[in-house]
Amino acid sequence: MAAVNLEEILTFGTGLARTVGSVILDAFKQPKNIQHKMGCADLVTETDQQVEEMIIKAIKETYPSHKFIGEESVAGGLKCNLTDDPTWIVDPIDGTTNFVHRYPYVAVCLGFCVNKTVKLGIVYNVPNDEMFTAIRGQGAFSNGKKLAVSSESDLSKSLIMAEFGSARDPATVETVLKNMSSVVLNPVHSIHCMGSAALNICAVASAQAEAYYEFGIHCWDYCAASIILEEAGGVTIDTEGGPMDLMARRIVAACNLTIAEGLRKKLVPIHFPRD
Amino acid sequence: MAAVNLEEILTFGTGLARTVGSVILDAFKQPKNIQHKMGCADLVTETDQQVEEMIIKAIKETYPSHKFIGEESVAGGLKCNLTDDPTWIVDPIDGTTNFVHRYPYVAVCLGFCVNKTVKLGIVYNVPNDEMFTAIRGQGAFSNGKKLAVSSESDLSKSLIMAEFGSARDPATVETVLKNMSSVVLNPVHSIHCMGSAALNICAVASAQAEAYYEFGIHCWDYCAASIILEEAGGVTIDTEGGPMDLMARRIVAACNLTIAEGLRKKLVPIHFPRD
Repeated sequence: MAAVNLEEILTFGTGLARTVGSVILDAFKQPKNIQHKMGCADLVTETDQQVEEMIIKAIKETYPSHKFIGEESVAGGLKCNLTDDPTWIVDPIDGTTNFVHRYPYVAVCLGFCVNKTVKLGIVYNVPNDEMFTAIRGQGAFSNGKKLAVSSESDLSKSLIMAEFGSARDPATVETVLKNMSSVVLNPVHSIHCMGSAALNICAVASAQAEAYYEFGIHCWDYCAASIILEEAGGVTIDTEGGPMDLMARRIVAACNLTIAEGLRKKLVPIHFPRD
Repeated sequence: MAAVNLEEILTFGTGLARTVGSVILDAFKQPKNIQHKMGCADLVTETDQQVEEMIIKAIKETYPSHKFIGEESVAGGLKCNLTDDPTWIVDPIDGTTNFVHRYPYVAVCLGFCVNKTVKLGIVYNVPNDEMFTAIRGQGAFSNGKKLAVSSESDLSKSLIMAEFGSARDPATVETVLKNMSSVVLNPVHSIHCMGSAALNICAVASAQAEAYYEFGIHCWDYCAASIILEEAGGVTIDTEGGPMDLMARRIVAACNLTIAEGLRKKLVPIHFPRD
């Protein structure tokens, strides 16, 4: 297999994100057409599927040896299998509920892994035309401007990003709310819920918030954003402690390890089957 | 007292919002300087106070007979007294926690009442340069574009705006979370928490969300935004039912009465002293 050129891949990936971004923006202006994937809060739209097909087609044409894992392909029955091969992990629209409601907080996420390690991430906030990028070891950027995380080390002075998630069974909702209660009463300045895991992590990378946590998300929700946060000086850990596990469907992402560990210890784990 | 000219007042108010908006935007780039007003989550910054002084000075110069109620003036000891006189209800920075964290979701709010009725509202989302305006009977606008609410009438397909609030006593937090749990399990598509009451209401006015509710907010948090929502075709009601009470520190704001009543019935009231 040919060596990968990450700069070249970044140029390709940001171009691709902008191309599909314009499709998403056009769809924003059209009437809504929603399918329900699993439950009433897990939505999929025609545009998700169309955009994922466009992304995968472009990757196959330009990098025929690369593998991919995509939200809609997995939903359609493909296995979520991360190997050592160069692999794209794709979320065509992170924040589908936002997309459905035309709430302007949705992103195209393109993560790129080699040897099961995230090497490059692109998160494109389409309505805001904000392109977050990172290559391992080269820093993180938003529209070309270098990102640096918050220097706050006191959890009680922190702004936390979290989500209610898409599960609607009372036991899971109860634990989600119990975790929010523990965090609020720590105390913290506030909890924000914006409906996009990737953009929540990018808010931490941009020093707008100190941390984000969630259970039940998928690798395509946090792969690309995780390296953006790490390259902005932040940390990503597993909710059980130790390094982030890309397939474990859970994360604590923070501006530093003190905040990450302080937050992690407030959380009751919620278990989901691995990706 | 001279008759009020609402078009003239709108021109004055939007100009004033832009003027103080530039001060807020400058401050966004400076190091943070925070005071705590009541508790750890109720923050006030130098900029809030400076901006409110600027607003009140400008109103006094142009409309010497007008009264005003302002967040920082009331915090500083002035009485919150709404009479039949033409009165400005001012929040210099709605979303102070966002401002403190440089989270780009803060607004200048200028509401204008005559005979205790809201006649005009201006909500200026400063980082987004988005000017929401309404005059009673003349529709609502965002940067000049007419607003219309969502036509959704099924609460289970709705996106709800809410907040964790600034109270940190366990009993209040427990009720706040219990209400969120009832709403999530109704079910709804999701709950979003963005940290600005006024912009949450404007999100409903813009058809990005179906409803917003909160207990514990003040008249300056919802006065200006409430008329923007009403003029966009939405409704504002009291959490006990019936018309919105500007001094009751609580609101359900929705795209229509079906959603508003459906949401209201899910909520356990939280009592705060009146403004």
